[in-house]
Amino acid sequence: MSKIYVVGIGPGDYEQMTGRAVRALKESDVIIGYTVYVDLVKAYFSEKEFLTTPMKKEVDRCILAFEKAEAGKTVSMICSGDAGVYGMAGLMYEIGEKYPDVELEVIPGVTAATGGAAVLGAPLIHDFCLISLSDLLTPWEKIEKRLSCAAQADFAVCLYNPSSKKRKDYLKKACQILLEYKAEDTVCGLVSNIGREGETSRVLTLKELKDTEVDMFTTVFVGNSQTRNIGGKMVTPRGYRYE
Amino acid sequence: MSKIYVVGIGPGDYEQMTGRAVRALKESDVIIGYTVYVDLVKAYFSEKEFLTTPMKKEVDRCILAFEKAEAGKTVSMICSGDAGVYGMAGLMYEIGEKYPDVELEVIPGVTAATGGAAVLGAPLIHDFCLISLSDLLTPWEKIEKRLSCAAQADFAVCLYNPSSKKRKDYLKKACQILLEYKAEDTVCGLVSNIGREGETSRVLTLKELKDTEVDMFTTVFVGNSQTRNIGGKMVTPRGYRYE
Repeated sequence: MSKIYVVGIGPGDYEQMTGRAVRALKESDVIIGYTVYVDLVKAYFSEKEFLTTPMKKEVDRCILAFEKAEAGKTVSMICSGDAGVYGMAGLMYEIGEKYPDVELEVIPGVTAATGGAAVLGAPLIHDFCLISLSDLLTPWEKIEKRLSCAAQADFAVCLYNPSSKKRKDYLKKACQILLEYKAEDTVCGLVSNIGREGETSRVLTLKELKDTEVDMFTTVFVGNSQTRNIGGKMVTPRGYRYE
Repeated sequence: MSKIYVVGIGPGDYEQMTGRAVRALKESDVIIGYTVYVDLVKAYFSEKEFLTTPMKKEVDRCILAFEKAEAGKTVSMICSGDAGVYGMAGLMYEIGEKYPDVELEVIPGVTAATGGAAVLGAPLIHDFCLISLSDLLTPWEKIEKRLSCAAQADFAVCLYNPSSKKRKDYLKKACQILLEYKAEDTVCGLVSNIGREGETSRVLTLKELKDTEVDMFTTVFVGNSQTRNIGGKMVTPRGYRYE
């Protein structure tokens, strides 16, 4: 039976991959992914066959992987972060219904939520939500509803895809919804280029976040009512008592 | 300046650690953790000094780490999964206010949500919430509110700490709250002993989940309205169109 590994490579740096991810790539004949992520791993596995498709060609990318597997190759489909969090694992299972002879194995990795949280301190230590602000595949009303419910229930929130060229004001709109239930001084954080060259981070208030422009390489963190700024780190307590 | 790494070791298996986590443990003189997790890494780093404290002695464990660091040792505080998701990173920053000369570096890992998701298929591919059912440090009313809001907003939900000896009926209660807004045939999944010996998983409906008993080594996944059972795998679509 032919096999495809669907591999989360983490933030991008070789050292941020798990041993299991490295082994899957080593065992593969073909490594397929979005151009940017393939470039990240190419240097370390130069003897492999590399295939890429651009953004918005995700379905083609999956079909390519299954065709290579059916031709007898061991294939790795790579995703940044975790393959199962806004990654390709879902679509691979969906497309895979047509390729019953190909086995899929998903290999988890460090997603931007936990990678970015580690940079900021410990913002996601307790219950939290992940919400993508991209309305490319999700109606904006549904995103608004999720933001509102997350704020009502005092979740910490991690926002993926907070901005793009066409959606410059989405983060502002999201903050306005969160501010209906969260305080203006709620501790928030931004991390850009997590685990890559040029990594930067900033801790700020929700009021400040509302008027901050971010780019598409930024992940946004909004604290819960207990989140504190401890010496420039964003820290959500879990509730342990200490003097 | 002395340094403490707060390291997420992932599900437990050596291969599931990132290269960065392995390097931190290699660089450390002392490795501190909960007894169970220390036992998981002991075999691979036998020349180190190992210190443990039992459950409910988390504050003591942190103080121990800072005292060793102040004495000039390089220390790793290890957590299963990710150190920043129901892990020790938060408490370390809180206790760390008293140890300004000790630097903390959090090293992310694969948490049970993404590790378990990879076993089940792709349940968390879109917006999701993590909720712990443990009311040891969180009032149960707050947990109920979060469950209710998560269901109203059609989030996929991952439940940590779904059961313990004293809380045998908590998962049932949680399912009853989710069922106020989620359909009985919502696709759900269970994974026990993620990435360890004896790993098992099961895909079932929310109605079935309500009457299922799980142990404390189980992570529970509840789909959103789009989640499907594809050949025994739990798959949440992201919304890509394909024929």
